Amino acid sequence: MSTPIPEPAAQTTLASIETPALLLDVAKLDRNVDRLTRRLSAFDVTFRPHVKSAKSIDVARRLFPGGSGPITVSTLAEADYFADHGISDITYAVGLAPEKIGRARALVRRGVDLSVLIDSIGQAEALAQAAADGGAMPAVLIEIDCDGHRGGLLPDDPMLATIADRLRQAGVALRGVLTHAGESYGARGGIGLEEAAEGERAAAVAAADLLRRQGHAVPVVSVGSTPTAHFARNLDGVTEVRAGVFMFFDLVMHGIGVCSTDDIALSVLATVIGHRPEKGWILIDAGWMAMSRDRGTQKHPVDQGYGLVCAVDGTPLPDLIVGDASQEHGIIIVRPGSGATLPDLPVGARVRILPNHACATSAQHETYRVLDGGGETVAAVWPRMRGW
Amino acid sequence: MSTPIPEPAAQTTLASIETPALLLDVAKLDRNVDRLTRRLSAFDVTFRPHVKSAKSIDVARRLFPGGSGPITVSTLAEADYFADHGISDITYAVGLAPEKIGRARALVRRGVDLSVLIDSIGQAEALAQAAADGGAMPAVLIEIDCDGHRGGLLPDDPMLATIADRLRQAGVALRGVLTHAGESYGARGGIGLEEAAEGERAAAVAAADLLRRQGHAVPVVSVGSTPTAHFARNLDGVTEVRAGVFMFFDLVMHGIGVCSTDDIALSVLATVIGHRPEKGWILIDAGWMAMSRDRGTQKHPVDQGYGLVCAVDGTPLPDLIVGDASQEHGIIIVRPGSGATLPDLPVGARVRILPNHACATSAQHETYRVLDGGGETVAAVWPRMRGW
Repeated sequence: MSTPIPEPAAQTTLASIETPALLLDVAKLDRNVDRLTRRLSAFDVTFRPHVKSAKSIDVARRLFPGGSGPITVSTLAEADYFADHGISDITYAVGLAPEKIGRARALVRRGVDLSVLIDSIGQAEALAQAAADGGAMPAVLIEIDCDGHRGGLLPDDPMLATIADRLRQAGVALRGVLTHAGESYGARGGIGLEEAAEGERAAAVAAADLLRRQGHAVPVVSVGSTPTAHFARNLDGVTEVRAGVFMFFDLVMHGIGVCSTDDIALSVLATVIGHRPEKGWILIDAGWMAMSRDRGTQKHPVDQGYGLVCAVDGTPLPDLIVGDASQEHGIIIVRPGSGATLPDLPVGARVRILPNHACATSAQHETYRVLDGGGETVAAVWPRMRGW
Repeated sequence: MSTPIPEPAAQTTLASIETPALLLDVAKLDRNVDRLTRRLSAFDVTFRPHVKSAKSIDVARRLFPGGSGPITVSTLAEADYFADHGISDITYAVGLAPEKIGRARALVRRGVDLSVLIDSIGQAEALAQAAADGGAMPAVLIEIDCDGHRGGLLPDDPMLATIADRLRQAGVALRGVLTHAGESYGARGGIGLEEAAEGERAAAVAAADLLRRQGHAVPVVSVGSTPTAHFARNLDGVTEVRAGVFMFFDLVMHGIGVCSTDDIALSVLATVIGHRPEKGWILIDAGWMAMSRDRGTQKHPVDQGYGLVCAVDGTPLPDLIVGDASQEHGIIIVRPGSGATLPDLPVGARVRILPNHACATSAQHETYRVLDGGGETVAAVWPRMRGW
């Protein structure tokens, strides 16, 4: 993982760029990718990273130094964007709205090996009707519910075979089953994550076995979430693993017990714009527009507010958090009860804020300012895509 | 307020556009603008809308059918954008970071009448040093704290005169004082809003009087927030009023008691993608990426979750809310305890979601799809700007 960063921009430093700005430490990104890639290489599975956190071909190139995928996406706009940049093996892992079938088919026509996700006979029927014209169709994964988190069918639901039969009748390829242990995000300190991973595996494999007993080939058994991908001990019967936020990590993943704060590759650079010493406040120019409104650590034993404050070199400042935020203001406070003291940060001083949720914070920004080698020099500016 | 919508796009309807999509009912926008404009016309004040919610010249043109401002902005990127579109009277109402002075001066050099906001001698000193070269400088407003919400000096702080003296010495124009009753957002059902408005007025006027007693001209006494602008009974001594979210309104403003749900001009169009009848869930394709993570009604007597669900014509569905959200999934539930029943919304059905916080939700989108005349036809697509 020592690919050089392409297209270096004019040299600028963390002292000179405008704030707020989203920073990406590419050495940490590479380390996080390497960690999970090595871990999964011990299993007989394909790794299909979820690029909904990244939304950037430059970040995706760190995942596949030589390749063209496979990836997971959360929107068809992501599928279009990554296909435009040469990635051809894509799973769209959000339940398919019928009116999106036309756009999915257009991706297949341009050469993308696309899988879509369904969990109802209504969606199967819509696909069957679309296929009646004989044109190109995406392959289908059936969503399995492994933990009651969101959508999907239970692994023993007879509807599984009903859907598979309808697809076969219409000549639409059933590729397999997919599940996501979303409840694993409710874990704390690593507790319960091995069990969540095993529950995810067992649900997907049971659903695949049910379909196979009914005469359906199920080449793909897909599981994944960042917590379970890091804690699974057994992936028997699983053919691929997905994970997204692992590449950046964040304070939620830290609270769950999946990473250290030193692993967090994203931060927001901010400038001090005021003080209220009588309140114990330092005001910065990174509010929720820069951090997002995500308060993912609100119910954790350690509530990180809107983010953990670091020195400009990335070293966390003891027990300093962004306690509140309005649109373009953040309020830095000492963590309540910590006994720490507010540091002397004059107007114009710079800090970096580690985010609660990498996906939400990065979505607030147009670009990544890329730091290479741990220094304070911006080596490149990588654009992000957005929209649907 | 019957300005025709410029640049009508190809006719499309709410049944055919892709989801999720941000909708703007321009009749409600115009009605909201008209309501506050009429109210403030009874006072001897300038109205300086805050366009941080809009971030769109097309929306701003509904505020000033014939004009060029004045406006309030929250970023210098907004100032640049609106200046590019001919708006020349701009107040940048976030505490000034010293390194942004150069960019502020560039706006003045291109002809913008720009005011910046400070509340410390450090910021005054940075402006004084910049002014030493004799070039164009923005005018300065001193931020006053009227309710302990965020930044600003107390109205009787001797630092007010110290800052004013330093600016005068350096030849930098002191334009006046500015305050924002941010704590008014903590009101409920209209209670306390008249008092908040009076506190905002009294603080700004007291600070202006202190400065005048010290020999400083204070031509501008600026107050404002959407709640206080709608409830102020006396604006004696105030020269201008600011407000932003009033143009769109949202569920937070509804909870505070400033608007009805029928006044809310923004909504997110979504499509049903699944069901979990045993859990009482309907899944839609609008998650937090489309709604934002804003949970501004979480502590209100009526918690609206991630938004209130409406039929595609905009009529609220009784006690139906988006109870939870992940990145691209929303989970519609019946409001707990309401006794309402989950309606029959098949996969592919469309709904509209009223947002908690118009500023945060609209920031998640590239464009407004503009509805005119209350129907379901998209009459125009208005781009939004973003970034810093």
